[in-house]
Amino acid sequence: MRLIICVVYLAVFGPAQCGNILVWPTRGSHWINLKIILETVIDKGHNVTVLVPNPSPFMDTKESDRFSYQYFSVSMTTQDMQDFLNELVHFSVYETDQLNLLQIQIKFYELASKHQDMALSYCDGILQSPELMDKLRDGKYDVVLSDPHFPCSDIVAEELSVPLVYMFQFSIAHVLERMCGQIPSPPSFVPAGMIKLTDKMSFTERIINMLFYLSQDAFAILVWKRMDSYYTEYFGRPTSYCEMMGKADIWLIRNYWDFEFPRPFLSNFKYVGGLHCTPAKPLPKDMEEFVQSSGDDGIVVFTLGSMIDKMPKETSNMIASALAQIPQKVLWRYGGEKPDTLGENTKTYKWIPQNDLLGHPKTRAFVTHGGINGIHEAIYHGVPMVGIPLFGDQTDNLAHMKAKGAAVVMDNIKTTQPQDLVDGLNAVINNPSYKENAMRLSRIHHDRPVKPLDEAVFWIEFVMRNKGAKHLRVEAHNLTWYQYHCLDVFAFLITILTVVLYVFFKMCKFFIIRCCFRSKRKSKKE
Amino acid sequence: MRLIICVVYLAVFGPAQCGNILVWPTRGSHWINLKIILETVIDKGHNVTVLVPNPSPFMDTKESDRFSYQYFSVSMTTQDMQDFLNELVHFSVYETDQLNLLQIQIKFYELASKHQDMALSYCDGILQSPELMDKLRDGKYDVVLSDPHFPCSDIVAEELSVPLVYMFQFSIAHVLERMCGQIPSPPSFVPAGMIKLTDKMSFTERIINMLFYLSQDAFAILVWKRMDSYYTEYFGRPTSYCEMMGKADIWLIRNYWDFEFPRPFLSNFKYVGGLHCTPAKPLPKDMEEFVQSSGDDGIVVFTLGSMIDKMPKETSNMIASALAQIPQKVLWRYGGEKPDTLGENTKTYKWIPQNDLLGHPKTRAFVTHGGINGIHEAIYHGVPMVGIPLFGDQTDNLAHMKAKGAAVVMDNIKTTQPQDLVDGLNAVINNPSYKENAMRLSRIHHDRPVKPLDEAVFWIEFVMRNKGAKHLRVEAHNLTWYQYHCLDVFAFLITILTVVLYVFFKMCKFFIIRCCFRSKRKSKKE
Repeated sequence: MRLIICVVYLAVFGPAQCGNILVWPTRGSHWINLKIILETVIDKGHNVTVLVPNPSPFMDTKESDRFSYQYFSVSMTTQDMQDFLNELVHFSVYETDQLNLLQIQIKFYELASKHQDMALSYCDGILQSPELMDKLRDGKYDVVLSDPHFPCSDIVAEELSVPLVYMFQFSIAHVLERMCGQIPSPPSFVPAGMIKLTDKMSFTERIINMLFYLSQDAFAILVWKRMDSYYTEYFGRPTSYCEMMGKADIWLIRNYWDFEFPRPFLSNFKYVGGLHCTPAKPLPKDMEEFVQSSGDDGIVVFTLGSMIDKMPKETSNMIASALAQIPQKVLWRYGGEKPDTLGENTKTYKWIPQNDLLGHPKTRAFVTHGGINGIHEAIYHGVPMVGIPLFGDQTDNLAHMKAKGAAVVMDNIKTTQPQDLVDGLNAVINNPSYKENAMRLSRIHHDRPVKPLDEAVFWIEFVMRNKGAKHLRVEAHNLTWYQYHCLDVFAFLITILTVVLYVFFKMCKFFIIRCCFRSKRKSKKE
Repeated sequence: MRLIICVVYLAVFGPAQCGNILVWPTRGSHWINLKIILETVIDKGHNVTVLVPNPSPFMDTKESDRFSYQYFSVSMTTQDMQDFLNELVHFSVYETDQLNLLQIQIKFYELASKHQDMALSYCDGILQSPELMDKLRDGKYDVVLSDPHFPCSDIVAEELSVPLVYMFQFSIAHVLERMCGQIPSPPSFVPAGMIKLTDKMSFTERIINMLFYLSQDAFAILVWKRMDSYYTEYFGRPTSYCEMMGKADIWLIRNYWDFEFPRPFLSNFKYVGGLHCTPAKPLPKDMEEFVQSSGDDGIVVFTLGSMIDKMPKETSNMIASALAQIPQKVLWRYGGEKPDTLGENTKTYKWIPQNDLLGHPKTRAFVTHGGINGIHEAIYHGVPMVGIPLFGDQTDNLAHMKAKGAAVVMDNIKTTQPQDLVDGLNAVINNPSYKENAMRLSRIHHDRPVKPLDEAVFWIEFVMRNKGAKHLRVEAHNLTWYQYHCLDVFAFLITILTVVLYVFFKMCKFFIIRCCFRSKRKSKKE
């Protein structure tokens, strides 16, 4: 079938339409979005090969037989990787409030180094395998698709002489986008992310934002030293990690102006947030019956994501007792032991069809940990939110929704009291402004010239058709930091101005002295 | 018929789809692009009212009966306006090389003041007429569409409480976009326009670019003082011209990455360059016969635009003698007396179907003055160019095409020798790189997710449907210049740092002195 589609495409559009796409390993929510794009490009007749680490705790190669999988060996075990993720989650959710800022930064540096170990073991697994590299060279790929948080895809794109397309949401303090992608981010109105700031900042907030930018820049420079050495060693010439990343043709950003604050960007940055959202499909029969039993009160959809399936008993009891107090029926994705305080209005499920539930006409609110995919789905369907952030970008994601008036947000899961949750739910359900704002964001999401999935696929196919998109890449990539900020020009102009002023004053002094001297001589003679 | 379309739209999309659009007066090539958008929105069922000055030398109200025209009186006569334009053209084409930089700047200031007189007479004609303003208020408009070079549309949009959409190409040194629209333009890689620079600048060029930015900023601040007073007087409260302009919802830029160098921009800036381009229609019979008679050599299309219909005899003879030397047939748009040196291969026409000729398979080259509309048509059809810039943005437009390898450009019409023109034509016709580059730009033009006309219409309808697009407007509009550049934050941080260092050194000094003093006392005692 794929061959037939391919032949039809070849006949209609010529050879560039039916290409080979190489996908760099990724995981979690990053993979969810990527997979949808890959399914679509396969529908259009392209071939997709996904690089999969072996052992792999995050990529289930059985989930689709439509992709080709290319395995590579990694030195880390599945357990190492799982341990790292558990440590990251545990630290973020349960430890950060017991540490001071310096301790947090040190721990983050430690975790970043561990992540780097993992990432470099992936790089080694691919780049240090001559057989695999030969196989990739023979694969006649037209593009490499990757998440810039997972390095070395730029090396492979360079080795195969094919364009590189990145896709991700954002990096902390936009270090990757700013320092490597050259996107301008004035700290006066572009919040650095992760610190719950919006585009409207007070003087103090602008100071915090600026300090966060500066500290993250320093942090990145420190952490990237090892990457620079790796890249330099690989190429045998001084090569920086950031410079290689800057060669990407297109940056697909999993974001849009329904969620993001308006900001400057570049011609090769494409905002395709919410591309995974689809209209709701019918619910399973028993679930639909439960939903319908809610009557006019409607339902609340509750999930804290796939990474927190179990939680301490007191937390689950706190949540259950809060949910028991609202008139709505609640569908709670929760894989742990049944809480003692679970009300009759609440049902727990090991898995829920989240998007279908959010798109159900009876849905009144969404309780979420603030994962970006869930938030985009809630925006798509215009559902107001109650946020309980756990870790990572979630606090910041929810800060966006709060600023846009579509969510009430708890500080964190540990300090949340049942009454806070009840108040939050009552607010977003009964105060019409939350629903109105959620619907406004939904209109912004839907009312755009091209659907996000179509736009993402368009630009991937564009670079395949045109062997890149260098006409969209700013010249800033070829400037040093002082050239970019015109510091050399300012230094030159200030020097010239100083010299001119110096000569001018010297001449004035000379003429004044001469003038006075003459007049004195004249008066003496007289 | 329009009523039927409107009713169908109302039935399908609801009331917001069938709206009323108010168009601010404009002229020349600005009007050509706008008219195409207006024709399209009328096809979609909207009503268009165009404000027309009376007397009007630039807008022929008989050219389309599809628009409603709303006249307003201006104090200037048609002759005054024509005289101004003649003066501008004559100065730009024939005087600039006889003056030094200061004289040019003074003359430009004089011309800018005259343009302001004209623009303000338009403002007065509309704003100072209570009957007209009442009529506009009763018109139930959904959007005001305007070129920001013609002021006061922002006042009317504010008075009518409707969104404002701007459309234009660019302003000198991007002063309007930068200072009023808040678009970032780093002088290190964004050329200021009008000075023939590209995004790849040497150190000297970056100095020139920076000085041009600075001088134009100072010039703008000077010229806008009068506008600020006008706006302040109208509203009866301190109001700046720039601040009002910054309230625009969408800026449609008549530009795209086939022509423009990649640069940073904002979420409410939409690049819709080339929206007027269409596939070629068949030529008139006699013209087609002449074109076909060219055989394999093909034809050259020659036009210096509508504003230079007549030229000095020696210039027309120079051009004709050059054209007589090439093997191609030439179609020359020229309204003046037949030159003595006109070759048999050249035919002059008072008017030519430029787009249809550029899209003809026999067309080998386009000789152009560098008007933006003609350049976009040449890009659309992939035709290499020979440029003879006359005035205004033309030198700069052609510098873009030269940098992208699709044109050979003469310095100006006065210094061009017949052999230069022959060499230029031979180069773009016989050196395949020019055609290849023109075709590459053509592919970039055509290969985009939405056609430019559709995108322009989409965003106009978007603001009509959604009563604006404030979610795309950056918070930078609400910051002062020193806040935007974080100068207050830097000042604060430097002060804190200085105080900390001062206290630290004082304490060090104190302890060192104390320590030495003690040890001295100790040794004395000993």
